[in-house]
Amino acid sequence: MRKLKWPIYLLGIIFSINTYAQNDAEVLKKIYKASLTNGKSYDWLNYLSNQIGGRLSGSLNAEKAVNYTKEELDKLGLDKVWLQPVMVPKWVRGFKEYAYIESEKGKRTKTTTVNICALGGSVATPALGLKAHVVEVKNFEELKTLGKENIEGKIVFYNRPMQADLISTFEAYGGCVNQRYKGAVEASKYGAVGVIVRSMNLRLDDFPHTGSMIYGDLPVADRIPSAAISTNDAELLSTMLKLNKSLKFYFKQNCKQFKDVLSYNVIGQITGSEFPNEYMIVGGHLDSWDLGDGSHDDGAGVVQSMDVLRLLKISGIKPKRSIRVVLFMNEENGLRGGKKYAEVARQKGENHVFALESDAGGFTPRGFSFDCNDASFNQVLSWQPLFKPYLIHYFEKGGSGADVGPLKTKTNVLAGLRPDSQRYFDHHHASNDTFDAVNKRELELGAATMTALVYLFDKYGVNPIANGKQIKK
Amino acid sequence: MRKLKWPIYLLGIIFSINTYAQNDAEVLKKIYKASLTNGKSYDWLNYLSNQIGGRLSGSLNAEKAVNYTKEELDKLGLDKVWLQPVMVPKWVRGFKEYAYIESEKGKRTKTTTVNICALGGSVATPALGLKAHVVEVKNFEELKTLGKENIEGKIVFYNRPMQADLISTFEAYGGCVNQRYKGAVEASKYGAVGVIVRSMNLRLDDFPHTGSMIYGDLPVADRIPSAAISTNDAELLSTMLKLNKSLKFYFKQNCKQFKDVLSYNVIGQITGSEFPNEYMIVGGHLDSWDLGDGSHDDGAGVVQSMDVLRLLKISGIKPKRSIRVVLFMNEENGLRGGKKYAEVARQKGENHVFALESDAGGFTPRGFSFDCNDASFNQVLSWQPLFKPYLIHYFEKGGSGADVGPLKTKTNVLAGLRPDSQRYFDHHHASNDTFDAVNKRELELGAATMTALVYLFDKYGVNPIANGKQIKK
Repeated sequence: MRKLKWPIYLLGIIFSINTYAQNDAEVLKKIYKASLTNGKSYDWLNYLSNQIGGRLSGSLNAEKAVNYTKEELDKLGLDKVWLQPVMVPKWVRGFKEYAYIESEKGKRTKTTTVNICALGGSVATPALGLKAHVVEVKNFEELKTLGKENIEGKIVFYNRPMQADLISTFEAYGGCVNQRYKGAVEASKYGAVGVIVRSMNLRLDDFPHTGSMIYGDLPVADRIPSAAISTNDAELLSTMLKLNKSLKFYFKQNCKQFKDVLSYNVIGQITGSEFPNEYMIVGGHLDSWDLGDGSHDDGAGVVQSMDVLRLLKISGIKPKRSIRVVLFMNEENGLRGGKKYAEVARQKGENHVFALESDAGGFTPRGFSFDCNDASFNQVLSWQPLFKPYLIHYFEKGGSGADVGPLKTKTNVLAGLRPDSQRYFDHHHASNDTFDAVNKRELELGAATMTALVYLFDKYGVNPIANGKQIKK
Repeated sequence: MRKLKWPIYLLGIIFSINTYAQNDAEVLKKIYKASLTNGKSYDWLNYLSNQIGGRLSGSLNAEKAVNYTKEELDKLGLDKVWLQPVMVPKWVRGFKEYAYIESEKGKRTKTTTVNICALGGSVATPALGLKAHVVEVKNFEELKTLGKENIEGKIVFYNRPMQADLISTFEAYGGCVNQRYKGAVEASKYGAVGVIVRSMNLRLDDFPHTGSMIYGDLPVADRIPSAAISTNDAELLSTMLKLNKSLKFYFKQNCKQFKDVLSYNVIGQITGSEFPNEYMIVGGHLDSWDLGDGSHDDGAGVVQSMDVLRLLKISGIKPKRSIRVVLFMNEENGLRGGKKYAEVARQKGENHVFALESDAGGFTPRGFSFDCNDASFNQVLSWQPLFKPYLIHYFEKGGSGADVGPLKTKTNVLAGLRPDSQRYFDHHHASNDTFDAVNKRELELGAATMTALVYLFDKYGVNPIANGKQIKK
């Protein structure tokens, strides 16, 4: 009987909340069904991976990928599709790297070949390769302790593994990647002649994993070549070093940095029906490393983002705000595309209220991380029940993504799709980042999950307390 | 200031709850760390898969797997390890199956070979194979509509695909598997001479997926051979049938059912320190189909269950209740092991308060489903925050597992580990259910998640309202 005493207006609110929620639940169902039964992401990825392949910035393949994705967006009947010019670095691996461990047994010299690859941005070795003694370290502090007397003229071997007991493999990556990124700069302070880095990979296998590194202010003459070694071979080298400190390591790599070249971000837009000057973007990066197909990093994010606009259309959703897909160029070794997009947006005074990035692989989506204020985050949390049927549970504050980062304002919402991370670093930046490692359904669930979030933010608006009107209706 | 008015005993309860939760959080952290940095599950699976292989009931490999897992359990220093005899069916595939579609083009006959495999329990075709016209149906109702006049003397081709828009692939499987399980019985009512079933697989690929089927009361003479066809070839056959209703399908299979043979459940036990007569079991099934290695189905569940007892030990947990690992024989084509275990438990009056099964693949664990009363389920829900750091969010009422099912009582708790299901049916019962499809970390996270649940149920007891004492302390 107590219920009857509730004020009528409260009942009204409860009723309308339920109705909204039911409508939204129906729309989400339609979106997921569209993606799982009529998605295009997998077909697009098949083409990007198997007909084009690795798409390093400045390469012919990157150009092909620009043309292909623009053509495909053109077919979707969006309101606008265009290319945004951006100058990007051009680094070329050249002929495949070669490396071996040389140890002496009595009077005989034994060589054991190992799997390496040049790090992106590294200089080449001398034409005949580089051979030197090796000093193994786990971190930069050890370099300091060892000092110049123990390092000069040697190859520094960084061998700190990713921490296996961290649940998020990205956290484990974050705890190791400075070895790769800054290892050469740090080692050259002590007169090292080269750098070998344990691959950022939680598995033990034979794939070397590339990735970017920088020389900073180091004069060109002081730049030392850096390569990644597979985890199996890192273990081998470490074991052999324990038995024989005087072994030598030989490697030869043939990479080269060229002048910047012209490339493009690829952009498509559905213009908003009510607030055309409020922009919501979804994106991934079109460039990839050169060793594999770049299927997970970030072909997956590219095709999922493309399909968000298509899934909105085929689900009969007409956005109030302008929704853009942005395929960023050069995330891997420069972030020029992300910076350029934000720069142009600022110049034009475009109000970007929301940006969602998918750049963590095409695995089963678990949720999102958000970079936003509390009001927007609470708004997101109120949508959690809508995502439960799709096993999307993870809604946390945290980073969003490298390419959308430069768009940050005080009031907008940046978000990153968070797929299951366990297998990501098995493939990341390695020659086994290939199409066969992507599961169609996992990819499609990601595209649907992104579309659902875009739908909700478009419908209810971003930062409702500041806007006022959205929270009332 | 209001807080100071709270009764002291309430503060005491809150304090003790927090302390418990903190301790439990620490224990779970230790368990997950132990599994991810010092787990044995992956090594054991490597041996089971690559040194033994597929373990069909009654086969030499099944016997090897019994011996191997018993030996490994013996090494763990458990309180008791033993084999429980059970008679199991023995069905043998024999020489690889062969099939083609025969169509006529003008005066020429064209044959297209397709990928099939006999369903488990099926009879062989005649020695020279079986060739007949084909009638395609989606379900048993269509058989009825078509009637004997359209089916007699033909091969029935069941081609209802798994429903792609269901998020749980197990639900999609449940909606299709009657074609495989009862397809032959139903088709033979209308005089069909054979059955071809679309593989239970959401992907389009070339792997035929086997699985059990029954003839029920059908006299031996009336039993018709049944085979699964790969999804790609199901699509092909369907398309060719649309163009040419008079095509013929040929298949030859050489399988045979033998008399039951002796096999074993493998059991290990840590005897409880306080309530040794309360049993909590964890298990998976040791048998598998013969086409692949049975890595996901259910090598994963076997090695995870074995590691639960080991992880408890190395994490310094001394269970109050008796914890058993049970490796069931013959889940796939008879469930004899599960039935036998429950039968013996009943005979001995053993009180099984808890049983957890892992038989849904070695993929990233998402949570559990429970078959229990509300009191126990609410107890589980109170532990949800403890699992959140490990991204374990799914706690739902629902089925547990086939092997532990026969242990159900009114008060006990049956549970099933629920890993991510998206890739499961890519491999299920097919030749690509192999070790390389299992990710080490995903497998280990599953073992840790199982161990954590066992730890909590052991510590707090099952069904606290009925027991009384657990809820007070």
